[in-house]
Amino acid sequence: MEPESRIRVALERNPYDVIIGSGQLARVGDALSALQVRAGTRILVVSNPDVADHYAAQCLSSLEAAGLKPVLLTIDAGEEQKTLDTLRIILDAAQHNGLERTSLMLALGGGVVGDMTGFAAACWLRGIRVIQVPTTLLAMVDASIGGKTGVNHPCGKNLIGAFHQPSLVMIDPLTLRTLPAREFRAGMAEVIKYGVIGDPELFERLEQAEDLSDPGRMTPELLQTILERSAQAKAAVVAADEREGGRRAILNYGHTFGHVVETLTGYGTWLHGEAVAIGMATVGQLAVNKGLWTDSDQQRQLTLIQKAGLPTAWPSLNIDKVLDTLRSDKKVRHGQLRFVLPDAIGSVLISDQIRDDDVRQCLTSQH
Amino acid sequence: MEPESRIRVALERNPYDVIIGSGQLARVGDALSALQVRAGTRILVVSNPDVADHYAAQCLSSLEAAGLKPVLLTIDAGEEQKTLDTLRIILDAAQHNGLERTSLMLALGGGVVGDMTGFAAACWLRGIRVIQVPTTLLAMVDASIGGKTGVNHPCGKNLIGAFHQPSLVMIDPLTLRTLPAREFRAGMAEVIKYGVIGDPELFERLEQAEDLSDPGRMTPELLQTILERSAQAKAAVVAADEREGGRRAILNYGHTFGHVVETLTGYGTWLHGEAVAIGMATVGQLAVNKGLWTDSDQQRQLTLIQKAGLPTAWPSLNIDKVLDTLRSDKKVRHGQLRFVLPDAIGSVLISDQIRDDDVRQCLTSQH
Repeated sequence: MEPESRIRVALERNPYDVIIGSGQLARVGDALSALQVRAGTRILVVSNPDVADHYAAQCLSSLEAAGLKPVLLTIDAGEEQKTLDTLRIILDAAQHNGLERTSLMLALGGGVVGDMTGFAAACWLRGIRVIQVPTTLLAMVDASIGGKTGVNHPCGKNLIGAFHQPSLVMIDPLTLRTLPAREFRAGMAEVIKYGVIGDPELFERLEQAEDLSDPGRMTPELLQTILERSAQAKAAVVAADEREGGRRAILNYGHTFGHVVETLTGYGTWLHGEAVAIGMATVGQLAVNKGLWTDSDQQRQLTLIQKAGLPTAWPSLNIDKVLDTLRSDKKVRHGQLRFVLPDAIGSVLISDQIRDDDVRQCLTSQH
Repeated sequence: MEPESRIRVALERNPYDVIIGSGQLARVGDALSALQVRAGTRILVVSNPDVADHYAAQCLSSLEAAGLKPVLLTIDAGEEQKTLDTLRIILDAAQHNGLERTSLMLALGGGVVGDMTGFAAACWLRGIRVIQVPTTLLAMVDASIGGKTGVNHPCGKNLIGAFHQPSLVMIDPLTLRTLPAREFRAGMAEVIKYGVIGDPELFERLEQAEDLSDPGRMTPELLQTILERSAQAKAAVVAADEREGGRRAILNYGHTFGHVVETLTGYGTWLHGEAVAIGMATVGQLAVNKGLWTDSDQQRQLTLIQKAGLPTAWPSLNIDKVLDTLRSDKKVRHGQLRFVLPDAIGSVLISDQIRDDDVRQCLTSQH
């Protein structure tokens, strides 16, 4: 049996573990038994068709072997299906399968499955437990940890949702084998983010790696390191600031411009991670313009992003629409824009000193 | 100026006040200023057309006088509109009016408006603050306090929702003047409930009152006493058990059978409070059958319920459907029915010892 890593998300009220290791998917039933989930408990396993084809059987038999009663629901889970309508499908399945307060939901899939299953679990009977079993790199290093759940509003991403912490996160790197290459690379954007915002060692390790765009060319050790350090970073920030009042906001590095890209190009043009890559490149340039960090650090960031096969160029977008969209972002306070800006590799600050003109200048100079 | 009562809901994380007094509606703006809500803050005031006709102007001008920026949304708010579709209307209005994380929602109306506005506030940007300004007796003594929010699923009441505590509850008895008599009486069911589950003095005070079915025939002092003691009872139970793990369950006295009546007769046949009245009468008989309380106490309860103009007779319903519905109730644990049963005036116990046969016998003997 492969060794496993356990990372504790040390929340005051509902602490939980992130378990990382090859082959963990086959042990999810045992892990739930270890959490005192009692035999006979109903579990609504939510997945999307592709992931279910590869991994549902293994997951369900592990749960059944532990005496649990899983039932599988597959949903279409692109970003454009992340809506109240799909939420309703999960809630209907919860009703149909008789989920009680002691029942569980389990999200087996990427970020969209995780966000919607988490939100459904938050709403069903005013909250039942949820287990996150992410199968994409993006969900492993980011979305599955921290309890942010939700769906999109036609006018913006993740405007509707809840904070609902999982009871357990199970990460099995073997599931990355079947992940499309483009999605793997998109996940690397968040890994690079952890380097920039607080982990210069991780950043350097990534710089030294031969390849960052294909898991088949990465050593299992590098992959395990990436997953562990990312989970540690996320867990530490979440534990320090569960509801994003302060420190948790640094996790939004690259996301403010990223959301603009996703919103204005329409969901589906860019993957979330690709939009974040563009957002990091852009906000890095903004930091350079403001004299906060150096050209050479921005260059190191751009090189790393490109090495992971990710885009860095700001797309052609109407600047007024960009500013409108920035202002409709849920991180806005009393109409004042806020940005997470890098000031070194491994360090960021939060600023509400960025004016519209700074944004205009930065974005127009990118073309 | 009339005197006001303040009752503290002493939660660990988000304590708040319930303010009770004639004329409070005109002081809601001042109360928000006292809570440090800053000038310029946007407030989505959600109400239904009838209530808005009577009270929206007063509420909005009080908010505006305090420098706040209210905007009114009226929704149809019968129990049959308490759905995800209506939730979506509120969320769309939140988006349309640019509600940020520091913005507020304010529910001005009965339980349905309060539940849906509270749930919308819980979901919008993963949670913004909500103020409850109940205008029905039922909402004043029950729904507005405690943070239970939600909507109905086609297969059951309140199956979808969140725990989301208000930042303030403002109760103005003057708004009861325009409440339809039937709705006032329905609210009295919850008041009687507080007597049975823990406040024998309130129960006796109600027994001594000349009339319980018409607020016009009740003294302002009796009305104030009813509102205060009910709010105190609710606040105490909620503070002891925010999420209904244990003690809060006693608030469900009469509600288990009540939900069955509401579900199987279709929303709209009986008002919630009327169904609770039937539920209390029925579960009281069950307690007598099980030898837990006396015939004479059950008789006192029936007399009081009838004095308030409320029904007590169990309707004609298919017994198998009743049992199915009981089992689909969200209070069920591992398939075992749970009931809150009275054992004295002012005392209840929670039992999972009630078998299907007990229910069958109790319900069939009612005809």
